[in-house]
Amino acid sequence: MQRYIESNRKKVNESMEQLFQRADIPEKLYDSMMYSLLAGGKRLRPILLTASYDSFATSNEKVMNTAIALEMIHTYSLIHDDLPAMDDDDYRRGKLTNHKQFDEATAILAGDALLTYSFELITKDTLLTANEKVFLLNELAKASGPEGMVAGQMLDMESEGKQITVEQLEKIHERKTGRLITFAIIAGAHLAKVQQIQLDELKTYAHYLGLVFQVQDDILDVIGDPEKLGKPVGSDALNEKSTYPNLLGLDGAERHKETYIKKAEKALERAKPNNDYLYDLLHHFGDRTY
Amino acid sequence: MQRYIESNRKKVNESMEQLFQRADIPEKLYDSMMYSLLAGGKRLRPILLTASYDSFATSNEKVMNTAIALEMIHTYSLIHDDLPAMDDDDYRRGKLTNHKQFDEATAILAGDALLTYSFELITKDTLLTANEKVFLLNELAKASGPEGMVAGQMLDMESEGKQITVEQLEKIHERKTGRLITFAIIAGAHLAKVQQIQLDELKTYAHYLGLVFQVQDDILDVIGDPEKLGKPVGSDALNEKSTYPNLLGLDGAERHKETYIKKAEKALERAKPNNDYLYDLLHHFGDRTY
Repeated sequence: MQRYIESNRKKVNESMEQLFQRADIPEKLYDSMMYSLLAGGKRLRPILLTASYDSFATSNEKVMNTAIALEMIHTYSLIHDDLPAMDDDDYRRGKLTNHKQFDEATAILAGDALLTYSFELITKDTLLTANEKVFLLNELAKASGPEGMVAGQMLDMESEGKQITVEQLEKIHERKTGRLITFAIIAGAHLAKVQQIQLDELKTYAHYLGLVFQVQDDILDVIGDPEKLGKPVGSDALNEKSTYPNLLGLDGAERHKETYIKKAEKALERAKPNNDYLYDLLHHFGDRTY
Repeated sequence: MQRYIESNRKKVNESMEQLFQRADIPEKLYDSMMYSLLAGGKRLRPILLTASYDSFATSNEKVMNTAIALEMIHTYSLIHDDLPAMDDDDYRRGKLTNHKQFDEATAILAGDALLTYSFELITKDTLLTANEKVFLLNELAKASGPEGMVAGQMLDMESEGKQITVEQLEKIHERKTGRLITFAIIAGAHLAKVQQIQLDELKTYAHYLGLVFQVQDDILDVIGDPEKLGKPVGSDALNEKSTYPNLLGLDGAERHKETYIKKAEKALERAKPNNDYLYDLLHHFGDRTY
């Protein structure tokens, strides 16, 4: 699995650098967009998207632009979330956040630009049909818009310092990180032309995969290695964020994670993929240390 | 013309209120989006879009969602431009700006949400073919992204307090406001199925129309009535913005406007519209007092 991940990460990074020429973009804006885009992200979402495609079809060149569009949306959300008015973070992945490296105005515009450009990228993909583009653009907009990721960030901010339940926490994560992860899975599978019944099972798989990702994120903020993570740990407690460990304890969080993994495995089995990529990625997410 | 404008403005406002149900959007986020969307905008871009369609075809119901999507993009850009890190404006159209009425984080997210939702709206329009949607989404993303409107805002900020030429000023406006105005014209005309040669003439028309709009904006910031404008005048001078009047004087600015109007008229004539809507709107823009 590690080799599959590394090879796809490399492919994504290379495509991103080639594809995204400066063109007619003002220099500072371009620099700011590229700074965050190439700031050493793990490329988990693009890798999930290609793995979902590879689970049901061959030759994943077809999904590369969509994978990059997805990573652009993820990157824009990090830039805006890090702003002083939001989470006010100075570091991300061991580097200065965008508004610290540049300035707030540039960071806001770089986020806006990446969001908009991700849609443009899909509209001009020469390997996709018009119907495929409309499907992807619709799903991507829903996943990242006011009922999806933006809603998640809003609810997350509103929950700070408040006592919430595990169910409420799940609902926040489902939107804040879950919807884009689900997009990765269904976009890949749709382009690989799976049946609707398989797509439904994959949505369930993606739902639990997203939660596994989030529990592990919360656990790492307690027991993770700051060197490996590229950021200090303990910030959730400091910001009075509701997390799995502080609602359930570390053991309770681990047990929740195992339950989510089992549910994801069962849905995946019913989707009948041709190989173990998505199974292995699920466990990779659950065991990750960075 | 005034009746045409009023009737289309009403249609846009009604469609917007009906169309955009709260759905699954968090309450504060929804309120913030709607606050700016319904803050009494003139709806110039949607009216241009419908007028462009009406110039070559009948029954403009087909363009209504695209017109609203365009107004959402315009609204998002105003919300972000008003932020403290950008133009730092407290009032817009006589009302508190979004971040003053709500807070900065909410305003950033409301802008992100409107931008994303505008693309979603076009993807799910049942009156358009997949090819029409892809055309519109591609043109809209190019017009508003890092080579379009976002670039314009970036260059505009960078030019503050600097001495620039009329040519540089035109290039900034062409991106900051011109590209969305051009989108309005070509989107309407494309959906009305005009020939490519007409579309090219209409692009020229839209280019000069955008400049007319901007010169008049600059002139009104000097001699306009604050009551009618819903904002104080003289802010450009205060912010050391380069404008037509301060580069050319008021008379020079007026003369420039007349030249732009003549060029727009000539291109429009060659595009052979079925009626005078676009001709009248050009003069309406040039003469506007608010």
